[in-house]
Amino acid sequence: MVDYFNSRILLQPNEVPKEWINILPDLPSPMTPLVNPMDGKPAPPELAFAIFPKECVLQEVSQEPLIPIPNELREIYAKTYRPSPLHRALGLEKELGIEGDNIQIYYKNESYSPTGSHKPNTALAQAYYAKRDGLEELVTETGAGQWGSGLSFGCNLFGLNCTVYMVRASFIQKPGRKILMRAYDAEVHASPSRFTESGKMFFEKDPEHPGSLGIAISEAVEHSMRSDKIRYSLGSVVNFVLLHQTIVGQEAKIQLNKVGVKPDIVIGCMGGGSNFAGLMLPFARDKLHGILPDLEIIGVEPRACPSVCKGQYRWDFGDTSMKGPIAKMHTLGHTFIPSPIHAGGLRYHGIAPIVSILTNNKVMSATMHHQTEVIASGIRFAKCEGIIPAPETAHAVKETIDQALKAKENNEKKVILFNFSGHGYFDLLAYKEYMTGDLEDYELPAEDIEKALASPEMPNIDESQF
Amino acid sequence: MVDYFNSRILLQPNEVPKEWINILPDLPSPMTPLVNPMDGKPAPPELAFAIFPKECVLQEVSQEPLIPIPNELREIYAKTYRPSPLHRALGLEKELGIEGDNIQIYYKNESYSPTGSHKPNTALAQAYYAKRDGLEELVTETGAGQWGSGLSFGCNLFGLNCTVYMVRASFIQKPGRKILMRAYDAEVHASPSRFTESGKMFFEKDPEHPGSLGIAISEAVEHSMRSDKIRYSLGSVVNFVLLHQTIVGQEAKIQLNKVGVKPDIVIGCMGGGSNFAGLMLPFARDKLHGILPDLEIIGVEPRACPSVCKGQYRWDFGDTSMKGPIAKMHTLGHTFIPSPIHAGGLRYHGIAPIVSILTNNKVMSATMHHQTEVIASGIRFAKCEGIIPAPETAHAVKETIDQALKAKENNEKKVILFNFSGHGYFDLLAYKEYMTGDLEDYELPAEDIEKALASPEMPNIDESQF
Repeated sequence: MVDYFNSRILLQPNEVPKEWINILPDLPSPMTPLVNPMDGKPAPPELAFAIFPKECVLQEVSQEPLIPIPNELREIYAKTYRPSPLHRALGLEKELGIEGDNIQIYYKNESYSPTGSHKPNTALAQAYYAKRDGLEELVTETGAGQWGSGLSFGCNLFGLNCTVYMVRASFIQKPGRKILMRAYDAEVHASPSRFTESGKMFFEKDPEHPGSLGIAISEAVEHSMRSDKIRYSLGSVVNFVLLHQTIVGQEAKIQLNKVGVKPDIVIGCMGGGSNFAGLMLPFARDKLHGILPDLEIIGVEPRACPSVCKGQYRWDFGDTSMKGPIAKMHTLGHTFIPSPIHAGGLRYHGIAPIVSILTNNKVMSATMHHQTEVIASGIRFAKCEGIIPAPETAHAVKETIDQALKAKENNEKKVILFNFSGHGYFDLLAYKEYMTGDLEDYELPAEDIEKALASPEMPNIDESQF
Repeated sequence: MVDYFNSRILLQPNEVPKEWINILPDLPSPMTPLVNPMDGKPAPPELAFAIFPKECVLQEVSQEPLIPIPNELREIYAKTYRPSPLHRALGLEKELGIEGDNIQIYYKNESYSPTGSHKPNTALAQAYYAKRDGLEELVTETGAGQWGSGLSFGCNLFGLNCTVYMVRASFIQKPGRKILMRAYDAEVHASPSRFTESGKMFFEKDPEHPGSLGIAISEAVEHSMRSDKIRYSLGSVVNFVLLHQTIVGQEAKIQLNKVGVKPDIVIGCMGGGSNFAGLMLPFARDKLHGILPDLEIIGVEPRACPSVCKGQYRWDFGDTSMKGPIAKMHTLGHTFIPSPIHAGGLRYHGIAPIVSILTNNKVMSATMHHQTEVIASGIRFAKCEGIIPAPETAHAVKETIDQALKAKENNEKKVILFNFSGHGYFDLLAYKEYMTGDLEDYELPAEDIEKALASPEMPNIDESQF
C-alpha cells in the first residue's frame, strides 16, 4: 500500500550494525591470494603490513564470518551519517506505472554522507585502524575524487595527515573535489607530480601530462614507503574494503525487515566493486545459506568498460604500472585505458576478486549499459525522486528501471533493491551534455579488448606453486 | 554527557509537524500591510490573488495562531526529506574546548533536502496550493539559484510548469544550479531576457547585461500576468513564506525535547529572513508567551549588506524596479546593490517585515560579520563536523562559535541552536578563494548607505490613510 509516511525507513544512530559480514568463509570456491609481482608467489603478510594498516591486512584474509565493528568506530559512524536511509521509490514506481505492492523498488541512500557517497564507510574504518596503529598519515590516489574526498574526511576526523595523488585531468576538470579535500586539510597533488620518482618520470617530460589512475597508484604506493608512519589506503577492489562496505547491506536488511519484505533482486553499479558488494554481500550470504535461494544479484557496468561482462578471468596487475600486487579477477588488461565516460568511478580495468568468484559461481550476474541511456535514467529518477544520482549510480538506476518494467510485462511480483551510491552535484556536466545532445556513447570494440588482453605484459602465474 | 549514539536526533517521517506557527497574532506591535505602489494604500486581497496562489494570500494576513499543514503536503515532506535531522555539534564543541554539557551546540540540518537547502519547505507548499487551485505554472526569479532549484523541484513533484528568471551573472557563474533546475524540467532564462517587456528594455541595449535581482523580479511578475493559470512565487520576505518555514523550528522543538534541553540562544543567517525566521519563530512565540523569557534570538548579516544592523526602518519597495508591493521593513534602500560576496542569498536590501517588528520590539537582535571570518568559520566547521556549509550558512556558524566562546569565557551554561540552512557543494569557489588568500572583505561605507537611503525614489506612505 502506498504510504508516504513510511516510505523512508530510518534507523536511529544507535542502530549502527555491530558487525561486518565477511563472505570469505562462505565463498563457493576458495578465495585467490594477492600475488607478489617480484616472485609470482602469494604475498606474505609482512609485505602487506608494510603497505596497509595492520588490521586491514588481517581482515583481508580472515575466515571469521562476522567481524566486529569497533565501538569507537561505530560512534563515529553514528555521529556523522550512519545508518543511511532506505527509501521506497514511490515516485519512480508511479512514473513506471507500477503503483501497488506487486513491484516494489527500494534504494539505500549513501549520498547523505558528508562527501556524498559510500566511500567514507571504508575511509573511516581505515583511518580508525591507522590511528590505532600509531600511524601519522594515509596516502592514496583518486580519479574523479569521490574516494580522495572520502579519505580526506576520514583522516581529518581521526587527526591523521592525508595525501592524495589526483589524476591531473580530473584535478583540472573537477576543481570542487580538490577544494573539498583541501578543506579537510588533505595535501592534494596533481599526478604525475614532481614529488615521487614514479611521477617525475612523466612530469619532467611533460608538466601537463594528463595522468592516469595507474600512475597515481604508483606515486601513492611510493609515497607510503617513505616512512614507517605512513601507509597506503585503497578505496575499492580488495577484500577488506568490501568488508567495510557491508555495513550498507547490513543496515538494508534491518530496514527491509522493518517493512516486512525480502528482496528478489539486488542491484549496484560496479567499478572496483565496493558499493555493489557492500550492499549485496550480506544478501549473497543468505543466498548461499539457502535463506534467499532465488535472489538475483546484478552488477552493472558501463559498456565503455565492461570488465566482468567482456573481460577475461585471469591473473592481472591491479595498477597500470605493475608495481602493486597481482590479483585473479575479471580484467580487460591493466594496459586498457577506458574512454572518458562521466562515470569516472567505473573506469577500472579489473574488479574485486570476490565479485569475480561470485560471478563464476553464478551467485550473481553482470550486465552493461550505454552512457546516454544511463544518464537519461538518472534524469528520470531526479524528476520523480528528487535526488540527482552520480553518473556511476545512474547505472544502477537504469538496470532497476529495466528490471521493474520486465516484471510489469511478465506480471511478476518483485522487490527490487539498489544502492544509491552517491549524488551527482559534482557531476552535473554529464547531465548538461545529455540535455544538449552532446553526450557520447562509447561501445568498446571487441578488437580493443582482444588487444588489451593480448598485451605481452600480462603476468603468468603458476598456481601449482602456491 | 558526550554520547555519540545520541548526537543526531532523528524523527521518523510520520513525525512531520501537523501545523505551522503563525506569529502574526502574537506580534508585540501590529503587522504592517503590503502597500500597492499605484495608490499608496494597503494592497487589497484581489490584487494579491492575481499574483500569488490564493491560499498563500490568505495565510499572509491570517490571525490564526496555528495553521494546519494539509495532509497531502505532509506526505510529500515525509516522502522526500522531512523531518530534517538535528545534530549535537560534538565535533565543534571539542574543537572549541567546551566538551561537557555546560555549553551545548545544536544545529538543524536543512542541507539534506534534494536541492541542498531549506528552500523546498515553502516551494513544496506553494506548488501544492497552486496545483490545488488548478494553476498550471509558477514563475519566479533567482540569484545564486537556491530558491530557483527549490521551486523547480517543488513544481516538478506536483506536475506544474516552472519558469525561472536567473540573474545573468549567476546564470553564467553557477552552471550547476541551472543544470539542476533543467533536470527538474524548469525553463530557465538568463535575466534580463528578451521574453518580457521589462527584460527587453535592458536586453536589447546589451545582450550581455549582467542583470540584477530587481530586474529578474520584474520579469517574473510580468510573466505571471500572462495567463490566469500562472502565478508568481516568492522565496522569502513575505509572511506566508516565513510561515511555511516554521516547520523547521517546530521540528527542532520536538527534537530538543527528546534530549531534554531548551535553547538559550537561537541563531540564523538573514537575507530575506526566511531560514532564520523558520527556525526562530516557534521559539520567539514561546518567548512572547513567557515560556522562554530569557531566550536570545540573533540574526546574522554580512557586513557587506547589513539591512537590519545599518538600515532604516521605513517603507520601501521590495524590488529594485518598483513594480512589486511596498513593505515597511529595515532597508538599505531598494537602489542599493550589495558587493559581490559569495553569500548570494544574503544580498538583499531589505528584510522580512516580521523580522523588523521583532527587532524593533527587542524580541531578537541582529549582528554582522566579515566575509573572510565567515568562510574561515565554515572551514573550521567542515573539519570537525564533516559538512561544508553554504557561505550564507557560514554566517550562522561564525556567530555560534563567537557565542560559545563568550559563554566559555564567562563560565556560563548555554544551549545554542542554529540553522544549518544549506550545504556549500555549489559554492566551493568561496572556500578556494579563502584558502588561496584571494577572498575579499567588503565593509559597507556609511556614505554608501546614506546615499542609497537618500534616493529620491524612496516611497512616502501616509499611514494615517490606512
